[in-house]
Amino acid sequence: MESERGNEPTVIAMPESKANGKGKAILSSTTKVTEPPKAGGYKKGVAIFDFILRLCAIGAALGATATMGTTDQTLPFFTQFFQFQAEYDDFPVFMFFVVANAIVSAYLVLSLPFSIVCIIRPHAVGPRLLLIMLDTVMMALTIASAGAAASIVYLAHTGNPNANWFAICQQFGDFCQSTSGAVVASFIAAAIFIFLIVLSAFALKRD
Amino acid sequence: MESERGNEPTVIAMPESKANGKGKAILSSTTKVTEPPKAGGYKKGVAIFDFILRLCAIGAALGATATMGTTDQTLPFFTQFFQFQAEYDDFPVFMFFVVANAIVSAYLVLSLPFSIVCIIRPHAVGPRLLLIMLDTVMMALTIASAGAAASIVYLAHTGNPNANWFAICQQFGDFCQSTSGAVVASFIAAAIFIFLIVLSAFALKRD
Repeated sequence: MESERGNEPTVIAMPESKANGKGKAILSSTTKVTEPPKAGGYKKGVAIFDFILRLCAIGAALGATATMGTTDQTLPFFTQFFQFQAEYDDFPVFMFFVVANAIVSAYLVLSLPFSIVCIIRPHAVGPRLLLIMLDTVMMALTIASAGAAASIVYLAHTGNPNANWFAICQQFGDFCQSTSGAVVASFIAAAIFIFLIVLSAFALKRD
Repeated sequence: MESERGNEPTVIAMPESKANGKGKAILSSTTKVTEPPKAGGYKKGVAIFDFILRLCAIGAALGATATMGTTDQTLPFFTQFFQFQAEYDDFPVFMFFVVANAIVSAYLVLSLPFSIVCIIRPHAVGPRLLLIMLDTVMMALTIASAGAAASIVYLAHTGNPNANWFAICQQFGDFCQSTSGAVVASFIAAAIFIFLIVLSAFALKRD
């Protein structure tokens, strides 16, 4: 466009600039001549990407919930006093993890319609603001639960001799493995949330 | 484009620039006659509030770092094998907590100039976008470390009979108290981050 402009004869440039004088025309011809379609397109792209990321996050959060919620290992021996069994609800932190990830999964499913509204109307500010606010809160919930569960998983793997807490993963290998997997899935969901928030910020910004 | 325009003969540029002046006048008088002061005012308010919140978050994050970093309790008795002492670096999670909160504090201090830029130029998009992105990442770091430390503090308070992890807070009461305080301070910092992100989203949105 610029080169064309530069090649334009002077005579033609004159009436254009005169027409520019009539107010709004100047805005569109000088500063925003190509922007409206471009802006709409890029915002629509952002909205579609947002929708796809939400689907991925649902997968990660649901996977984390299901993996942790079904974790259950019974050792093939028992003493007079104990049957050695490890379940997620032996650890309050893992229960919090399951509840938090279930809430996040439900939120993500419920947020899909709003994401679709943002695809249909890329310039709508209301749903976008609502999504960025709730996303932030849900991201905090996800990553708090993931961090808490991660520290317990780490403790189960390595133990802590200073506090006389012994590693239990020698005995409960499968239990440790599936809880570790759930924690990783939850961190993936949290990372997707970070992307979603940044995307929403880009979609919100003035063109 | 502008520079090429600048190379255009004066005869043509003259009416254009005159027209430009009119154009802008028309623009501002028709479409945005009342908006600039109102919008600027509310965005400036948001930016100032952002700055104040950042100062509060620095206090919370630095407080968390310092409280956790100086936590140290030695029990007034010892056996042949042990001197009973609890320090934050007995627990890897607490070390992560200290490092994460120190990073967040440093980030918050470094973000103050950008916040000031946003006060001076409430409509600037660049610094605002930078802040919301980094805030999101730092919020994730804060709350992950706070959640991880919280689960260890909880474990120290209550223990877990299923894993044979015993509560250590009976012995190390002061240690538990100051680590709990640090965790609370870190959660406060994380909550302030959530506010900061939502505020930035409001400041970014089109008027």
